[in-house]
Amino acid sequence: MSAVQLPHEVPVLPTEVPVLPTEVEVVNLGLPLFADAVRDQGRPAHHVDWRPPADGDPELVRALTRLYGRRSPSIDAANAEVVRRLDQGVPVLVGIGTAGADLPGVGERTIIHCGPAIGWDDVCDPLRRSVRAAVMAEGWAATPEEAEKLLRAGDVELEPANLHDAVVPMASAVGPSAPVFVVDNPQGGTRAFSAVNQGPGEVPWFGRETPAAVERLVFLREVAGPLLAECLAGSGPIDVFALATQGLQMGDDLHMRTQATTNLFVRAILPQLVGLEAPRRAELARFLAGNHLFFLNLAMAAAKSLTMWAQQVEGSSVVTTMARNGTTYGIRLPGSDEWFITASPPVGSAMYYSGYGPEQAAPDIGDSAVLELIGLGGSAAAASPAVAAFVGGTMADAIATTEEVDRIAAGRSSRFKLPTLDYRGTPVGIDVRKVVELGITPKVNTGILHASEGTGQVGAGVAEAPIACFREALLALDRRLA
Amino acid sequence: MSAVQLPHEVPVLPTEVPVLPTEVEVVNLGLPLFADAVRDQGRPAHHVDWRPPADGDPELVRALTRLYGRRSPSIDAANAEVVRRLDQGVPVLVGIGTAGADLPGVGERTIIHCGPAIGWDDVCDPLRRSVRAAVMAEGWAATPEEAEKLLRAGDVELEPANLHDAVVPMASAVGPSAPVFVVDNPQGGTRAFSAVNQGPGEVPWFGRETPAAVERLVFLREVAGPLLAECLAGSGPIDVFALATQGLQMGDDLHMRTQATTNLFVRAILPQLVGLEAPRRAELARFLAGNHLFFLNLAMAAAKSLTMWAQQVEGSSVVTTMARNGTTYGIRLPGSDEWFITASPPVGSAMYYSGYGPEQAAPDIGDSAVLELIGLGGSAAAASPAVAAFVGGTMADAIATTEEVDRIAAGRSSRFKLPTLDYRGTPVGIDVRKVVELGITPKVNTGILHASEGTGQVGAGVAEAPIACFREALLALDRRLA
Repeated sequence: MSAVQLPHEVPVLPTEVPVLPTEVEVVNLGLPLFADAVRDQGRPAHHVDWRPPADGDPELVRALTRLYGRRSPSIDAANAEVVRRLDQGVPVLVGIGTAGADLPGVGERTIIHCGPAIGWDDVCDPLRRSVRAAVMAEGWAATPEEAEKLLRAGDVELEPANLHDAVVPMASAVGPSAPVFVVDNPQGGTRAFSAVNQGPGEVPWFGRETPAAVERLVFLREVAGPLLAECLAGSGPIDVFALATQGLQMGDDLHMRTQATTNLFVRAILPQLVGLEAPRRAELARFLAGNHLFFLNLAMAAAKSLTMWAQQVEGSSVVTTMARNGTTYGIRLPGSDEWFITASPPVGSAMYYSGYGPEQAAPDIGDSAVLELIGLGGSAAAASPAVAAFVGGTMADAIATTEEVDRIAAGRSSRFKLPTLDYRGTPVGIDVRKVVELGITPKVNTGILHASEGTGQVGAGVAEAPIACFREALLALDRRLA
Repeated sequence: MSAVQLPHEVPVLPTEVPVLPTEVEVVNLGLPLFADAVRDQGRPAHHVDWRPPADGDPELVRALTRLYGRRSPSIDAANAEVVRRLDQGVPVLVGIGTAGADLPGVGERTIIHCGPAIGWDDVCDPLRRSVRAAVMAEGWAATPEEAEKLLRAGDVELEPANLHDAVVPMASAVGPSAPVFVVDNPQGGTRAFSAVNQGPGEVPWFGRETPAAVERLVFLREVAGPLLAECLAGSGPIDVFALATQGLQMGDDLHMRTQATTNLFVRAILPQLVGLEAPRRAELARFLAGNHLFFLNLAMAAAKSLTMWAQQVEGSSVVTTMARNGTTYGIRLPGSDEWFITASPPVGSAMYYSGYGPEQAAPDIGDSAVLELIGLGGSAAAASPAVAAFVGGTMADAIATTEEVDRIAAGRSSRFKLPTLDYRGTPVGIDVRKVVELGITPKVNTGILHASEGTGQVGAGVAEAPIACFREALLALDRRLA
């Protein structure tokens, strides 16, 4: 951190004295104050935004020195393989199943939920309500109070979706009878799942447990699930990211906004949709026509099928799980089952519905951050005018968001291309070394739920992942590779 | 046109002699050579791309002097009213009719076609085939040869769609039984029409007259038209530009690409679509699912409803008709029925299907350039990654296209907003004064047809409107206001 300043006007000196340069430009590292001082005196100054790595923490710097030093070749090779798997797998929607019948290890009395594992006492308000709604939809309880009693008594098992090859958005909770998307990644031999998106309004994934919310789960099980299964039987398997790549060119980030891709999906199954039996055909059509986030869960299941494949690589520093339950925030690295967990933070750059603000907002929640690991969501902000509104209002702000994620990424997507960045690929694979070194964490596009009253969504925004779990993951990787 | 050049190194002189400046920057007007010479010597030069107005043509310069001079206040006021009408009208799709029953002045034996009026002998090859296909679909002839005989004998009347409140894209020709979109502009009290888009493949609007092409017209009449009418009766009127404004945020220019907006339209009528009778419901669903330009004709009819309203303003220099028949290119100004016509040029910035090139390409054709008058198509290039591919490959090229149109526009859209230009409105209203002054013509996104063999579309590109008709229009306006 230093600044050089030379006089602007150079006096005429005797020729034997060395002449100082008449034009001075300054390069300034670190604190911007010095550069500003030079500019104030009318000379150009180039400021380099430099900080000590890992905020100068000695333990982290030692670990980084090893992980960027002699261990770097093997880590880089492992990371390249992880990026290849995240970027090159071609996930295919093959059908609709149910959580109980298809998810490995899900028992008859299991509810799966977003985020890391958590005891019932610690579950946040919106997820509590969602879990109780799922218990009621399963017919195990008639009221929220009855459901609460079962859960408190341990008569219902709570399991993280991520440990059963599934991912669910926001405060989703899924019982054994709930329909799930089945997505295969044939190259990697992995199969992943997600719930069918519940749509807008009075719905459990937004933290509601009203009769209408429970009714929506019953509709998904009785109508949407079976009819979508029929459509898929007729259409054949659907290449999920073939639609997503198009949707990205149409302003979707595939996380906060999936409108274009949802419409492409509806168009893809339209011939089958109109062939279904009445009157349930009309119910499904109304549901699809009114649910612009329908594709979200499908994109998540596709992403999960790739992170499961990447998870099998040994010795990589690229994050393969990133999930929040509204209480805790957890990440995982490949080749290990260990979770690195910290408190779930509030959503930073947010816009709230009229009458709501940060004081009503529940912390960051949902498994949907899996999208940011493979080049979608916040990583693809530069593709989406809709996201721009949440990060400053202009496309330049959205581009800056993607550029920042790019600094911590291990690679770039070969399929998700950004028109506003001359068709450069979105950042793929978050490298925990870069996150800790630069102090930059992934940006996650997300909704925001009410913290306590069960009134559902109160806003949306772009959340920054908390750095603490990345630091722990880095230290653990350093120990593991020792 | 001049360039100032001063020595870079200034010698130390006695103090009583005036000292020349030590730092020199040059502003260069006109030919760029001078600026290059200054830059070669290491000094900054700012080049201004200036040309003599109207290429220095004395007659045009005199007319411009009057139209920008003392007549300017009344022209500007008229232009503001034209822009208001083009920008503020809210066209609504109210139903489906037929050309013969609904278009004013269309007789029992009339075929309406794209572009200015034209005699049968002068009709270009793709439009000839399309007209013959329409004659066959009407049942007036069984073969192209029989149709040709009727047309040559004058037993079928040819009329420009634009003279009957309609617009039709590419080489479209429409018989009296053909279904048409009916679009109302309630503010302006105008009603406009377009044919239902024929879809991809072997179709007359691409200049084909095969049995399959004729069959498509029969399908539109027997299936698509009546069923779409049913859907609209159920859905109620549809605000055409409410969908288009969303589509523009999703990468549509609404001319070359209408994929996003078509999908939004399909979603809007989905509940009605699934309620139609089988098996024709399935036929319509397959047609809609496979036709990503379905919305094109609807956007055109909406645009026409606004240009018809603007056409009623007196004394404006803003173009209200721009149409091509593949032989001639014509424009009109408000307050007059006079057409200004020149030869239709080839499409400039084009990409061709494999095996085809400019030598097989028919000249610019279709009424769809009406879209460029109201802020869509080439005027909205900056919204569309798909269009970028045709104007240079990057979004910067697409933005440059919109910026160039902006230089000749009378206003900017308050509804069609460009994310890549910080949500600035697209250029609305082409001012013939600016066109002639600057020598810049509208950019029209369009398909390209085979010139002679009836094989259909061979490419797509961005056509520059020919300047000759704008010059004639300017001179006529000058005379009319004298």
